[in-house]
Amino acid sequence: MAVIGASTDATKFGTLSLNTLIQFGFEGKIYPVNPHAMEILGLRTYTNLKDISDSIDLALIAVPAPAVPSVLKECVAKRIRAAVVYTSGFSETGKEEGLKLEREIAKISKEKGIRVIGPNCFGTYCPASGLTLPPGAHYSKESGNVAFLSQSGGYADRFCQEAKGCGIRFSKVVSYGNACDLNETDFLEYLSEDPETKIIGLYIEGVKDGQRFLQTVKEVNQKKPVIIWKGGFGEGGKRAIASHTGALGGRKEIWDAFFRQTGAIRVSNLQELIDAVLIFQHFSNPCGRRIAIIGTGGGSAVDSADACERAGLSVPAFKTKTVKQLQALLPSVGASAQNPIDLGNPWTSPSTYRQIIEITSLDPQIDALINVMWQLSFFYAHREYLWKFFQKVIEVPMAISRNLRKPLIMVLCATPTEVEMLEAEGEWRRIKDRYIAAGIPVYQTIERAAKALVNFVAYHEHQKRTGASKTDD
Amino acid sequence: MAVIGASTDATKFGTLSLNTLIQFGFEGKIYPVNPHAMEILGLRTYTNLKDISDSIDLALIAVPAPAVPSVLKECVAKRIRAAVVYTSGFSETGKEEGLKLEREIAKISKEKGIRVIGPNCFGTYCPASGLTLPPGAHYSKESGNVAFLSQSGGYADRFCQEAKGCGIRFSKVVSYGNACDLNETDFLEYLSEDPETKIIGLYIEGVKDGQRFLQTVKEVNQKKPVIIWKGGFGEGGKRAIASHTGALGGRKEIWDAFFRQTGAIRVSNLQELIDAVLIFQHFSNPCGRRIAIIGTGGGSAVDSADACERAGLSVPAFKTKTVKQLQALLPSVGASAQNPIDLGNPWTSPSTYRQIIEITSLDPQIDALINVMWQLSFFYAHREYLWKFFQKVIEVPMAISRNLRKPLIMVLCATPTEVEMLEAEGEWRRIKDRYIAAGIPVYQTIERAAKALVNFVAYHEHQKRTGASKTDD
Repeated sequence: MAVIGASTDATKFGTLSLNTLIQFGFEGKIYPVNPHAMEILGLRTYTNLKDISDSIDLALIAVPAPAVPSVLKECVAKRIRAAVVYTSGFSETGKEEGLKLEREIAKISKEKGIRVIGPNCFGTYCPASGLTLPPGAHYSKESGNVAFLSQSGGYADRFCQEAKGCGIRFSKVVSYGNACDLNETDFLEYLSEDPETKIIGLYIEGVKDGQRFLQTVKEVNQKKPVIIWKGGFGEGGKRAIASHTGALGGRKEIWDAFFRQTGAIRVSNLQELIDAVLIFQHFSNPCGRRIAIIGTGGGSAVDSADACERAGLSVPAFKTKTVKQLQALLPSVGASAQNPIDLGNPWTSPSTYRQIIEITSLDPQIDALINVMWQLSFFYAHREYLWKFFQKVIEVPMAISRNLRKPLIMVLCATPTEVEMLEAEGEWRRIKDRYIAAGIPVYQTIERAAKALVNFVAYHEHQKRTGASKTDD
Repeated sequence: MAVIGASTDATKFGTLSLNTLIQFGFEGKIYPVNPHAMEILGLRTYTNLKDISDSIDLALIAVPAPAVPSVLKECVAKRIRAAVVYTSGFSETGKEEGLKLEREIAKISKEKGIRVIGPNCFGTYCPASGLTLPPGAHYSKESGNVAFLSQSGGYADRFCQEAKGCGIRFSKVVSYGNACDLNETDFLEYLSEDPETKIIGLYIEGVKDGQRFLQTVKEVNQKKPVIIWKGGFGEGGKRAIASHTGALGGRKEIWDAFFRQTGAIRVSNLQELIDAVLIFQHFSNPCGRRIAIIGTGGGSAVDSADACERAGLSVPAFKTKTVKQLQALLPSVGASAQNPIDLGNPWTSPSTYRQIIEITSLDPQIDALINVMWQLSFFYAHREYLWKFFQKVIEVPMAISRNLRKPLIMVLCATPTEVEMLEAEGEWRRIKDRYIAAGIPVYQTIERAAKALVNFVAYHEHQKRTGASKTDD
């Protein structure tokens, strides 16, 4: 790999990128190219690409915009087949000069056969290849089955960082910016055939070829869920798009029709995107909208039911048989055996807790279970003398979830705000990590769980309507 | 204070409550009443209330439901004027026995003049008096100007705990459960006249006297913002309400009319409630809907504008003069001087950053500023070598916010998920605490900031329409 534009100034983008690759542990050879330095970050530098005797697979370009076309030509001369152009200052400036430069890059790419990602992007993160985005020194080195395409570098970064903490692992992430050569549809076509990718997320501001994109999403979505966050619907958003990636945002009505036709999952911010990916990573069989809620506390039961119903799920009454079985297990006061279930006493014994989940999962009125537990502030208040007891209760969902016939989602309520609670939150996150490792998706709020589940359900409803069927998993 | 029903079993509710009061530092005398123990938690116990020679101001009752009426009669005999009945097992059970017991309590209260909070509740938190809820050992000991009334004990607890971390401080919090004697309207009338209370939040499932409640909210809201979270609109929520506090939830259409008529601020979960309280705590002058967004990164700009517009705010174009002044300060590439502003390079110097905020605040098209900064994962990735620089930039909003003519809200983007990021999050929260101490409300996401601001704006729009005016501060 050649890094063109790294320098001895640590705050420059090229240097940052080089440093990140080293920290991330890229195992191939890296050749920094800079005529003004002998050594950068401990690596020997080269004055020119042509001074490098090895062949180069990929060029990372971070020189100023006016120099990009000539650097790209040098790449062609060196027979480099692919380049990432980090540099900004092209069509997104809205100025003639930037537009002209971008057209020049596109022309070189097309005529000379060098494929370009960017300009105005963060490039690719691919843990299997040791590639990462410029801020991605700490991304997971494990591979997974989730791909993410992002017109925004910042959101590609945040997605990799934040989704990592939710237990999401990636096949390939691409921040492609202005997409002067390779665009969203090209990447989608690739990911469609990529055996390592099972779930595809996108952040897009606009698309290059609407018809081709629509057709591709429609086809890909039949075999792999495509989750799309389209940004920039309002007046301010459109203004931001124009100066960000120079894309034309398109009217909301057009996008409404796009989602109806393709069946792609529509989300409207980063959190919803991560939450949707998480549920697709854990569940694969279609699931209905009828939810059982298990929680502690009457207020929490009310709130959970409201949130599920607002999101488009239903919280139906249990069969009488279920209610009777639950009543036999629950305390006679301060609890409720109706859906939403209020366990009442938060000191529910592990065996009772287990039976309640199992009985609930057998009710024919119910398609999936959401268990709202382990409210952080409660745990924090009682952690000293209840920790041993908690530890046993916590094991229950992990022990039984794989044998339940229906999906189980955990909500570990944590709205972190205080410095003093950090230690308790650390315990919390370890519990979350263990649930996720056991195949149970975990959300921090009932709203997020409900929204993710409704996205999952709606995807499968669309698949059923259009006759597509999931063959793998 | 007498605690009736505390025992030597640490997991019992009465004991928990007593222990919490001691931990919280209640400075008055506490008399545990229990015929079967000599000493509980280091305090001498009494067999009967009448064995106590001192006069008693408040009785906390945690005996089983069937024993409550006789205990209440003993309180009357001891000339106790007020009691909190924690005990569950009354009308919320839906059973004749529970209903009968609750009517009996109400009758004693009415006939004998002892005022009762509850049953089926957590009682009161009042830092000035050293009173706290049963899970509230760690609540703030500082007083503030926010009151909260909650039909749910669990949400009273979560509100106190979570709002504390947002810098919210309380005058009085009441968890009143089934409200057999004192109800939401009684408390509201009190708070209306309470000089320590400036902002009032409520979580309600149903109300005892709809007309009186409506009239009271309408009147109180004219002088102190009343923020209401009404839970239990759907099928599942109504079922939960019935078994939680035995309240009748009421139809959604009725509540729509209620909010239109009273102008009370309507929120739909705990987070929104806390977020609304926070903004009312920081701002008092009316403010319009036209927002300037300042942030770093094009994707973030798009997302922030979308979120504001979805919430009902507008993100208008700046005056040409403003754009020109901003352009002179911002990098020519990778940034945007349009609204939403993209600072581009996250290494913006403190003086440039300061000037950008100041110039933006002077644009006549703009009513308020939202500054989306300090994305946690970015900070985390670069904390080692950028911390010193960050420290200077962080100071800027604190240094200037009081002199800006318009409200400034900070969004410190942090979606915490990873155990490894806890230390960086600690730094984050310290920054948040400092902003809040400097009078700047801080939110974790743009969605939450936008929603809080729109609630604030709508409140003042209603005040203006109805001719009410804020007379204090």
